[in-house]
Amino acid sequence: MPDAIATGLETLDELCINAVRVLSMEAVQRANSGHPGTPMALAPICYALWTRHLRHNPSDPNWLGRDRFVLSCGHASMLLYSVLHLTGYDLSLDDIKNFRQWGSPTPGHPEHGVTPGVETTTGPLGQGFANAVGMALAQAKLAAEFGRSGHSVFDHWTYFLASDGDLMEGVSHEAASIAGHLRLTKLIGFYDDNGITIDGKISLTLSDDTAKRFEAYGWHVQHVRDGNDLTAIDRAVSAAQAEESPSLIIVRTHIAYGSPNKQDTPDAHGAPLGEEEVRLTKANLGWDSAEAFAIPEQVKVRWRGCVERGAELQADWQRQFDAYAGEHPKLAGEFLRRARGELPSGWESALPTFDAAQGPMATRAASGQVLNAVARVVPEMVGGSADLGGSNKTMLQDAAPLSRYDYTGRNVYFGIREHGMGSIANGMALHGGFIPYAATFLVFSDYMRPPIRLAAMMGLQVIYVFTHDSIGVGEDGPTHQPIETLAALRAIPNLVVLRPADAAETVEAWRAAIDNRNGPVALSLTRQKLPILARSQLGPASGLVRGGYVLAEAGGGKPDAILIASGSEVHVALEARGKLMEQGVPTRVVSMPSLEYFAAQPASYRDEVLPPDVRVRVAVEAAYPMPWYRWVGDAGAVVGVDHFGASAPAQRLFEEFGITAEAVVERVVRVLAS
Amino acid sequence: MPDAIATGLETLDELCINAVRVLSMEAVQRANSGHPGTPMALAPICYALWTRHLRHNPSDPNWLGRDRFVLSCGHASMLLYSVLHLTGYDLSLDDIKNFRQWGSPTPGHPEHGVTPGVETTTGPLGQGFANAVGMALAQAKLAAEFGRSGHSVFDHWTYFLASDGDLMEGVSHEAASIAGHLRLTKLIGFYDDNGITIDGKISLTLSDDTAKRFEAYGWHVQHVRDGNDLTAIDRAVSAAQAEESPSLIIVRTHIAYGSPNKQDTPDAHGAPLGEEEVRLTKANLGWDSAEAFAIPEQVKVRWRGCVERGAELQADWQRQFDAYAGEHPKLAGEFLRRARGELPSGWESALPTFDAAQGPMATRAASGQVLNAVARVVPEMVGGSADLGGSNKTMLQDAAPLSRYDYTGRNVYFGIREHGMGSIANGMALHGGFIPYAATFLVFSDYMRPPIRLAAMMGLQVIYVFTHDSIGVGEDGPTHQPIETLAALRAIPNLVVLRPADAAETVEAWRAAIDNRNGPVALSLTRQKLPILARSQLGPASGLVRGGYVLAEAGGGKPDAILIASGSEVHVALEARGKLMEQGVPTRVVSMPSLEYFAAQPASYRDEVLPPDVRVRVAVEAAYPMPWYRWVGDAGAVVGVDHFGASAPAQRLFEEFGITAEAVVERVVRVLAS
Repeated sequence: MPDAIATGLETLDELCINAVRVLSMEAVQRANSGHPGTPMALAPICYALWTRHLRHNPSDPNWLGRDRFVLSCGHASMLLYSVLHLTGYDLSLDDIKNFRQWGSPTPGHPEHGVTPGVETTTGPLGQGFANAVGMALAQAKLAAEFGRSGHSVFDHWTYFLASDGDLMEGVSHEAASIAGHLRLTKLIGFYDDNGITIDGKISLTLSDDTAKRFEAYGWHVQHVRDGNDLTAIDRAVSAAQAEESPSLIIVRTHIAYGSPNKQDTPDAHGAPLGEEEVRLTKANLGWDSAEAFAIPEQVKVRWRGCVERGAELQADWQRQFDAYAGEHPKLAGEFLRRARGELPSGWESALPTFDAAQGPMATRAASGQVLNAVARVVPEMVGGSADLGGSNKTMLQDAAPLSRYDYTGRNVYFGIREHGMGSIANGMALHGGFIPYAATFLVFSDYMRPPIRLAAMMGLQVIYVFTHDSIGVGEDGPTHQPIETLAALRAIPNLVVLRPADAAETVEAWRAAIDNRNGPVALSLTRQKLPILARSQLGPASGLVRGGYVLAEAGGGKPDAILIASGSEVHVALEARGKLMEQGVPTRVVSMPSLEYFAAQPASYRDEVLPPDVRVRVAVEAAYPMPWYRWVGDAGAVVGVDHFGASAPAQRLFEEFGITAEAVVERVVRVLAS
Repeated sequence: MPDAIATGLETLDELCINAVRVLSMEAVQRANSGHPGTPMALAPICYALWTRHLRHNPSDPNWLGRDRFVLSCGHASMLLYSVLHLTGYDLSLDDIKNFRQWGSPTPGHPEHGVTPGVETTTGPLGQGFANAVGMALAQAKLAAEFGRSGHSVFDHWTYFLASDGDLMEGVSHEAASIAGHLRLTKLIGFYDDNGITIDGKISLTLSDDTAKRFEAYGWHVQHVRDGNDLTAIDRAVSAAQAEESPSLIIVRTHIAYGSPNKQDTPDAHGAPLGEEEVRLTKANLGWDSAEAFAIPEQVKVRWRGCVERGAELQADWQRQFDAYAGEHPKLAGEFLRRARGELPSGWESALPTFDAAQGPMATRAASGQVLNAVARVVPEMVGGSADLGGSNKTMLQDAAPLSRYDYTGRNVYFGIREHGMGSIANGMALHGGFIPYAATFLVFSDYMRPPIRLAAMMGLQVIYVFTHDSIGVGEDGPTHQPIETLAALRAIPNLVVLRPADAAETVEAWRAAIDNRNGPVALSLTRQKLPILARSQLGPASGLVRGGYVLAEAGGGKPDAILIASGSEVHVALEARGKLMEQGVPTRVVSMPSLEYFAAQPASYRDEVLPPDVRVRVAVEAAYPMPWYRWVGDAGAVVGVDHFGASAPAQRLFEEFGITAEAVVERVVRVLAS
């Protein structure tokens, strides 16, 4: 049996909180699927937060000055849906009844873009927590860039709720460490310390002193011993707001609070309580209505107070913003441009051009020049590397490091924390006002796949600068040489992978990445130097946006063979073409920096580039061949690498692994013969 | 200028330590590639450890009773190679001179299996640290299972060296938390606190109180203020050995110690010092020889003392083992069997069989039954889930939880720590004596890709139990539904992915996984129930080991169309075949649970299963289509899912996304027409 309702809870407060519990367990019951326990545990925190602290406006979920709220434990989605419905967001009771059904705005886990008021897609644990760090960083940075004394326009908070799972995940370490290092003072989170995981008591797997752990990161830590104690929750939030560091409030809660037979048990985590237990729980909570989804009128009134409160908060903010805009019209205009996600007009004129005479040049080096040039005119571009800035060429030469002392700095030192970097970049993109970029070696994109996937799912513009993109890494060996990585990234829906062949294509890759507003882009760049192609005799690099284009036509314009290649292997293909032409084989070279863009072209264009009747097609890429079979066809072949790399100078590896013009010629000859 | 050589350093000690520094910087210089700074910083720790504490035998690197040593900061590989060479392992001075060259046993980062004495492949940061936790867990578990009072046979230690990068990575949080929770007392590590990362001073990105952080995990933490103080290092190791918890020794070091111009700078991290600076450093260290790779005789003698010391240590252990074996012959025999990696004879007779009448049954449920049956007779199988044991069906019903109080327990509660789980499993496999398995939802394999890659690279037998393997997940929605995941896993060289179609294929999948001794296997299993195929009219499930096999022949034995499918979609294909046969299209169904195994078959077999002249081939898999183009050919098609999923009951999703018999029939008809 649960404890008696704790101190500080008026009757109406209690009813309002129980409304969330009842709605949540009933929606899960009706869907016959979902997670009832955590919403029931965390209802008081949300009630305190959403009605008293969180500055939000149900009538305008996109209000720029709003506080952000992140439910990192996304499985507790019914908690958020209940609160959004009750506080007056555009989420109806019918929507709640359609929890987890096809086409409803109440999916199993919260999805950004699907439900008003949902700030990020959560469910994969730890991501929301790290997104919140990214949002708080975006706030701190906007405040530093745009804030002016006498105005409090950019001082919103980011709140999160995190579960055991969120804090057990490694990404929580990376993100918490960065948040403490950067002293993100407007970040306040709750840790739902309920003592239960899916597989049983938390003591089966966790002995961390979480308070001490977060203190070690430089966070302010408080304890609330009773998750139903509204007064204590209020006090903790106020105390956290007064601190000059990120704050964690550890709240002892009871999963499935109020359920006579399932409270404090793992059974209540991920399955409906059952009709009978729902009935017993309602009785136990003193909930009058036997009917499902019945909310007492006074409860509605109290929660819906958020509509009026929100309108006032927003109006007040708007007045402050107008005063600010009056004094600082250019700043305000620039802020609004960035908030709308509009690029500065004419930004493209900053793009550099490259001439063959400037080569040879690694595409990572070209990328560094492009990024530096573009960042000068696109101030919303902010990012950095996971401690490989020098190698990734992502340092902005005329910008300062971002630090707790200077948030206007644009070089973010993410540290050796790829996963945190990716999730923080997502948080910044979600917050708005920034185009984040994040860099590491291509092979270490594996460390950050979960946030890459979520960026793709949410359609966030995040640009990944992945250098050292093949066995061209050389001496560092197989642990640092991507083989499967390109295929693995290309398989992610809505992620565009761009692997430019030279400096000119690198310019076009950045142009495409910045224009690609509704999803992430991964740039795949070489460590090693490559010639800059003399384009007078070749197809222009602007062909990159079509994914693949005819780079070098066959003599006579009628190819007997087509070589398809990306990145550094385009040069191998060009060399092979020369040898084949000498042997009397008219050969076309297609540069294909993006399989995604190419697949999206009309069939007519694709057939122009790869005429179906030219069946001798050989793809060349120093990577796992899987992605290329679609384009080489039955008669074709792929010259790739289907095993791990090795440690040796790069040129030796290309020879040993058969990524050479000679090997390509041999393969073409074999294909021609068969 | 460096500090004067610290207390406790005799002249010969100093020379021996400087030999490592000189060898390392010279090898890097000669290769013109590598990381000199960290070996120069950590040489004293290695000297103290390898000559005085580590129980190892250079003449027998595989001695079962040896302590394990893990260089988690793998970029400092020259440290390890220097020490292995100097202590007398089979690693010549010529090998050192061939650092980072093709075919040499001194690759850029340490590679297990390539170099004697290298216990694990490191370089991707954080992995070695977590491997060490896995090794210590393996030791604790073997000691609990096989140790008997009066004998100290299984009491070896695991030592590691970790850098800032290792401890910034999220996996360090997961692994450290588990090590503390399980109280792995025989785990002792050094944290190389050098204040420098690649991109600059550590203060640019890190403010953690690392000592406090590890104390929060339940570790014993000590500080050594001067990384050259051998006495302090010795004392710390002895103190750590006396503790009943894992131990971290934080050592303040100086990167590139001794280099007049590069000590304590990021320049010394990842590039040769330069000929001139090497010369200056040697002078500064008082190193006499101008010649490269010249080791003074007395240094050789002192280091090579490890050969005699090691032989004595091993002989002593062998005597202890013999006494143990005399008293406990069955136990000793069983230990040796497991250490040799031999399976118990006849283990396969434990495999259950399934009858169509037992269905429908999810393959995860069948997997749970197989695992339980096999684990009863294969005691080296040990593993668990990242808090989804109930869902993954990996709980061994007649086994206890593994805990700090009972290491004989076989159910490992890894917690919500997929990355740590994967790396710890690698450590257990590396240690020997175990076949680890690790489970989570298929989509969350993304959280553990780095250790999966390393298991594949090292050829470790680790079995991944990945359930909830498609949109069949249903209501949990797109965050929990793998789309790209199968393609991404199939692209990893030497990883076998098995996606069985029913309970019978699941038996064969486990048989194959247990027989697959030289690499990891990922089982892809359904959440949803599937029929158990009545095999009398169908090809036997034993076809699984060939990757693909004819499951249902076309009427008349001469197919006009072939449907290729895996897992749950095999049933869709069978249903479509029925409809196509009704329409007069003789259709073959090929079950293809493993594209890797199929690709490895001789062409003759592949052509038998997929006759080249049958060009109407349609693959069906509720996943990203990329892997299938190779097999369907120009005329064929793939019925897959090239976008993220959605939250709704599973059946609805299969219908909405066109993974139905009707949609397959329609596609075949279209292909036939074209």
